[in-house]
Amino acid sequence: MQEFHVTPWEVSGEVDYDRLIERFGTSPIDEPLLERLRRLAGELHLLLRRRIFYSHRSLDWILDEYERGNPFVLYTGRGPSGHTHLGHLMPWMLTRWLQERFGAKLLFQLTDDEKFLFKQELTLEDTRRFAYENALDVVALGFEPDKTEIFLNTEFIKSQYRLALKVAKRTTFSTARAVFGFTNETNIGLIFFTSMQSAPCFLETERQGKPVPVLIPCAIDQDPHFRITRDAAPHLGYPKPALVHCKFFPSLGGGSKMSASSPESSIYTTDPPEVARRKIMNAFTGGQESVALQRKLGGRPEVCSVYSYLSYVFEQDDARLEERYRACRGGEMLCGECKQYLAERVLEFLREHQRRRERAKDRLEEFMVRD
Amino acid sequence: MQEFHVTPWEVSGEVDYDRLIERFGTSPIDEPLLERLRRLAGELHLLLRRRIFYSHRSLDWILDEYERGNPFVLYTGRGPSGHTHLGHLMPWMLTRWLQERFGAKLLFQLTDDEKFLFKQELTLEDTRRFAYENALDVVALGFEPDKTEIFLNTEFIKSQYRLALKVAKRTTFSTARAVFGFTNETNIGLIFFTSMQSAPCFLETERQGKPVPVLIPCAIDQDPHFRITRDAAPHLGYPKPALVHCKFFPSLGGGSKMSASSPESSIYTTDPPEVARRKIMNAFTGGQESVALQRKLGGRPEVCSVYSYLSYVFEQDDARLEERYRACRGGEMLCGECKQYLAERVLEFLREHQRRRERAKDRLEEFMVRD
Repeated sequence: MQEFHVTPWEVSGEVDYDRLIERFGTSPIDEPLLERLRRLAGELHLLLRRRIFYSHRSLDWILDEYERGNPFVLYTGRGPSGHTHLGHLMPWMLTRWLQERFGAKLLFQLTDDEKFLFKQELTLEDTRRFAYENALDVVALGFEPDKTEIFLNTEFIKSQYRLALKVAKRTTFSTARAVFGFTNETNIGLIFFTSMQSAPCFLETERQGKPVPVLIPCAIDQDPHFRITRDAAPHLGYPKPALVHCKFFPSLGGGSKMSASSPESSIYTTDPPEVARRKIMNAFTGGQESVALQRKLGGRPEVCSVYSYLSYVFEQDDARLEERYRACRGGEMLCGECKQYLAERVLEFLREHQRRRERAKDRLEEFMVRD
Repeated sequence: MQEFHVTPWEVSGEVDYDRLIERFGTSPIDEPLLERLRRLAGELHLLLRRRIFYSHRSLDWILDEYERGNPFVLYTGRGPSGHTHLGHLMPWMLTRWLQERFGAKLLFQLTDDEKFLFKQELTLEDTRRFAYENALDVVALGFEPDKTEIFLNTEFIKSQYRLALKVAKRTTFSTARAVFGFTNETNIGLIFFTSMQSAPCFLETERQGKPVPVLIPCAIDQDPHFRITRDAAPHLGYPKPALVHCKFFPSLGGGSKMSASSPESSIYTTDPPEVARRKIMNAFTGGQESVALQRKLGGRPEVCSVYSYLSYVFEQDDARLEERYRACRGGEMLCGECKQYLAERVLEFLREHQRRRERAKDRLEEFMVRD
């Protein structure tokens, strides 16, 4: 099997998610935990049911505290290096559901500092512009303004800097290098940055003057940051943040992560419908070389990006998804038909999202916090 | 000769200031430059005349710009790890003189972040408290409130963070390690910190939207920070900051740097007069083992901390200082007499400074800036 590599700044190779749990030392979200979530929330979000959110740290403790009457705060974020694509929305969708079902406050960090430090070609004006574009997508998902704070690091630094310093003081270069794979050529801003990503984990505890549990829904590549946070927390007198991790949203070009660096294999929330349709119609599938061959051998949904899209988000009906799998396998359904089906679903979603995104422009300031 | 070692966080060995100029690659403040300063300022400050400020970077350029009608901004600061001692005041005294003579604005940075990161035992509350104590000493020196901004990094971070990020992006771990001697065990906050010390160098250029020259009076151990700043500046479109460097204020225990870590060998601005007097009476001198021997062989002013104090700051009259040197050498003057003389001078200074420091408490807010 091909070797794979996952850090917050690089994902390469074909990711084996079960091995990643072992490698990172996280826990699978198992049946009893899912049942407990279903009981407390009244239902299970699709991304949990489909095991897209599949790994966690201390989620059981978060639920213990919740049942004891100590509600948690949600924290997630975005590195604003470009427009939002569907892969970015996934953790935010679960976050939205958690806010609604558990009445949780949300802190949403836009790391314009990080992306400036990481991307040679981006200026601070670029990352600020993208941050505000991305914030519109967050608002469009329906978060509650009185329970949501969205901030850019460069604009909310005073509230975070002291907390970041506390984490930084406890984190050696050695540790950061081991966790993130830094080299001698890494810039000193990026080396420090993980402290900034830690800061919101402790913000509510500081504000409320009592230990406030924090739950972080994120893609699993962000876990290394929070390993550092969790190591530092007890020394600083803060509770360790808990996490639920999702798999990467598939690329339309095949491969395991939708990447902003290959725009044709990602669908952006700002894509015009015809562009999104074209990308889907050009997607990598598990089809055979000819119709005749596919009728004879069947397709391979397990490697098909169109099938992944449907199973991750766009086919909510389990029975229909299963039927599609069977029909593809049996050679009854061809790729064109599947793509058409997905395109309709995606365009329906996009049209609605873009409508809400447009409206979000007038409401954005209800969500933004600044120092 | 004993090897010596100078970084912003450690000075060890007997410092050879001429070799330090070579090692750091700075320039001596030579006779023509002193003459030019005297002409422009109308006089020469004692610390320049006595060659305590003895090294520079781009001071000639600062004066060129000044003569062209492009005035400079002064920038200096303090790492608030404890109370202010006389050694800290020295660069601020020259800074005060430069403000008066050249009508220059001053930015004064209190690096409460740095000292928290560097000193295991200090909390952010400790370094903030010391920062405010130190700020009183700055104000007591007579800076002009409408031309002076004093700030704590944790309170003025929003104004500085974007500038710090720009420097950080251009500075690799490799460079920072070479300049500061970092190890794998250095914490990631301290690795980033030099970017914060750079930030004020570019603040006025950002504010005014045109290149503003900056002159930094500081002890020579701070030079490494500004080598990084000067390397980054042209890439960021800012002028390189210029510097004038002073020698370290002598320790009363002998040795080349008054250190906050041996309180008996430093005089703090908060010391009660009897404490300051005791420290001076216990000072290391260049005296012989007995009065008889000293009458016979003479003293050694070149290794005497009392003589250093007088020559650095407390004997402004060149002729009287020379006469004292001669009398000591010739065995005519004994150490007790010299100590008494210094004690009177120091106590006179302290009483006046403490009076002004007390008054500064009511005026501090005229100087502080915060985000």
